[in-house]
Amino acid sequence: MAKALVGAAVVGQSGGPSSVINASTYGVIRTALDDPNITRVFGAAHGIRGILDDTLYDMNQEDEKELELLLHTPSSALGSVRYKLKDSDVDETDYKRILEVFKKHNIRYFFYNGGNDSMDTCSKISKYMQKVGYECRIMGVPKTIDNDLFGTDHCPGYGSAAKYIATTCMEVYLDARVYDSGMICIMECMGRHAGWLTAAAGIASYFGQGPDLIYLPEKDFDFDKFISDVKRIYESTGKCLVAVSEGIHDKDGKFIVEYGAENAPVDAFGHKQLGGLASTLVNLMKPYFGKAKFRSVEFSLMQRCAAHIASETDVQESFNSGKTAVLEAVSGVTDKMVGYERTTDENGNYKCGMKLFDLSDVANTEKKVPLEMINEEGNGLTDKYIEYALPLIQGEPKITFENGVPRFARLKKIVAE
Amino acid sequence: MAKALVGAAVVGQSGGPSSVINASTYGVIRTALDDPNITRVFGAAHGIRGILDDTLYDMNQEDEKELELLLHTPSSALGSVRYKLKDSDVDETDYKRILEVFKKHNIRYFFYNGGNDSMDTCSKISKYMQKVGYECRIMGVPKTIDNDLFGTDHCPGYGSAAKYIATTCMEVYLDARVYDSGMICIMECMGRHAGWLTAAAGIASYFGQGPDLIYLPEKDFDFDKFISDVKRIYESTGKCLVAVSEGIHDKDGKFIVEYGAENAPVDAFGHKQLGGLASTLVNLMKPYFGKAKFRSVEFSLMQRCAAHIASETDVQESFNSGKTAVLEAVSGVTDKMVGYERTTDENGNYKCGMKLFDLSDVANTEKKVPLEMINEEGNGLTDKYIEYALPLIQGEPKITFENGVPRFARLKKIVAE
Repeated sequence: MAKALVGAAVVGQSGGPSSVINASTYGVIRTALDDPNITRVFGAAHGIRGILDDTLYDMNQEDEKELELLLHTPSSALGSVRYKLKDSDVDETDYKRILEVFKKHNIRYFFYNGGNDSMDTCSKISKYMQKVGYECRIMGVPKTIDNDLFGTDHCPGYGSAAKYIATTCMEVYLDARVYDSGMICIMECMGRHAGWLTAAAGIASYFGQGPDLIYLPEKDFDFDKFISDVKRIYESTGKCLVAVSEGIHDKDGKFIVEYGAENAPVDAFGHKQLGGLASTLVNLMKPYFGKAKFRSVEFSLMQRCAAHIASETDVQESFNSGKTAVLEAVSGVTDKMVGYERTTDENGNYKCGMKLFDLSDVANTEKKVPLEMINEEGNGLTDKYIEYALPLIQGEPKITFENGVPRFARLKKIVAE
Repeated sequence: MAKALVGAAVVGQSGGPSSVINASTYGVIRTALDDPNITRVFGAAHGIRGILDDTLYDMNQEDEKELELLLHTPSSALGSVRYKLKDSDVDETDYKRILEVFKKHNIRYFFYNGGNDSMDTCSKISKYMQKVGYECRIMGVPKTIDNDLFGTDHCPGYGSAAKYIATTCMEVYLDARVYDSGMICIMECMGRHAGWLTAAAGIASYFGQGPDLIYLPEKDFDFDKFISDVKRIYESTGKCLVAVSEGIHDKDGKFIVEYGAENAPVDAFGHKQLGGLASTLVNLMKPYFGKAKFRSVEFSLMQRCAAHIASETDVQESFNSGKTAVLEAVSGVTDKMVGYERTTDENGNYKCGMKLFDLSDVANTEKKVPLEMINEEGNGLTDKYIEYALPLIQGEPKITFENGVPRFARLKKIVAE
């Protein structure tokens, strides 16, 4: 056991929001508030930006009940940021400022809740603090609906986004098929490089109420093959439901959404009118399908903020990840990210263990959907994926409703002097 | 009490699907199955189309448990249709065929679940049956997320769509505000003529987590005023969240979505590339807002099929509406639609009574959002609307989940000989 380190803790949120980043952050806050070694708990306004600006919210002054609502409140309650620290050997300005703010509040614990870039930020700050001899324990708490972080079995946020996508695909499947006329419906999921989110549409298909075709960026997209895939299904059933990842690209690496951009449309002001991938695909497909009716559906922001249909498994794991970060830091650990390890209990059922990863290993590495989870034709998922994904979407979220709508946390956000 | 009429019943679904049309239909089916006067219960495949084609599913052969799942299964489980009967004095062909099929199965009860057009269909068939002296009781069971049916206080389907929109607006509100950089986000709801759906965004605003500005088609949309509304809010807060109804139009009656169509874009195949209203607005706004970041979000099909966040009040009322239609028909009533009357219980709390409306009054009349529910400026809702809407979105749906996703009904659909 390392020697006790007594001081304040700060937690920050970074990168794109999710349904459960607040659950992780609450795991940090709750555990830190309860820990005798931690004298005060701050929430950084807009991540690292709040530290640089010395805008730290005093978590000790928040109502316990409101804090608890963070478990089921989507988005980043403390505010997020996309800010990349320069290397300290290039420019030390930011690091000096961070040190100054840490010293001012006697901050000895820094928890950063985010994706790849956030782990990179953690790692850089940690190295600097070690170099200048300021004792401080720094832990990364992962977050990304993209599920693309290195090492960890899965990422906090993914299960909830996957549950939203699978559920919504089932609902759209039922909706898009009600008429006795033909219908082709294209659903677009986020995922520029990794197809994890789109893969979740495969859960709906697995249960017989999902897309006929699913395309991920892990395999090159062949437009002619796509048209013949859709034709085959549409001609035999009169319907075709397709899920696509925004990042699908052809064998030359060109994004399909750019196919539309070519002939595209400049408006009266000289701006290119760029649509999303789903509507681009619909426009590209129309000439091949006579009078078929088309619909394009974008899951847009909803796939990352629909906390009302979050996975309770994801919520609880996220909380545990934040909690573990604090417990480990207090016990002497630093420079690690708390990820997940999949294990099984005595009955062979899914269990999720917490596992520490080196920050420097995680930063800037991407995990894609393994090819064994994608079918040969590149237009669907295999059972390997279903096996992987199902445990992550279990359990319905214990949302507090008030007046018929979710009661999300409302923090006071009192800035510490 | 009218003389008992013994025979089979048929129920059909028509028009756009909703989260609760199956709940109404289940109200009909369950009650009809339990009624001694009703000898058999059929579900028409794709509404009136299924009657014309004599494709009637035998509801007596369905599992009770599956039928019960209809309560929380979105979309039209029997299949829907958009088919307008000609007037019988113009062309009797369809009517003769309907009579033939009714006679074949001894159908004495016809329940039609749908919107304006469906009430029109009911009314026409009823008149024909009376003319030819075929004894038959015909009842309309309302349905429309648009909430625009005449007479009834509100429409089955509206509460659920409103709950989805209010909840999603709150979630998007939290999501769209996380960064410390500027953001303008336009959310588009359905509603070509009536703004009821978009109005539901006002519920989120009422609770402090919704759009800053809301525009309905009931008031003329002034683009310059709109730009200055957005500028005022964006310049003072750095964010602006807007909800718009797809049918907003200027004082000359021109749809705003057509503003985009003008300079629009023809692709390589000569097709006009038309975006939705939200993306059109974003393109029109960009020149006025320098480097602001924009997002357009379309609630698309989700707003009418997101059964997982349906209003349980809506589900139960819808069931009751179907149930009442059967009980009334059996007791001798015909030619009516079962709508809602708002009353209060002894404590002054909302209660929803069932009320009968003449089919011919309902057909082809539209109810818009009254101006007293819209603010003076035409960019938000008044408390009158909130008072009206809140009772309709209460209660969370008792969805059955299986493997982490909703377990929707799967009917056998055995076609009756």
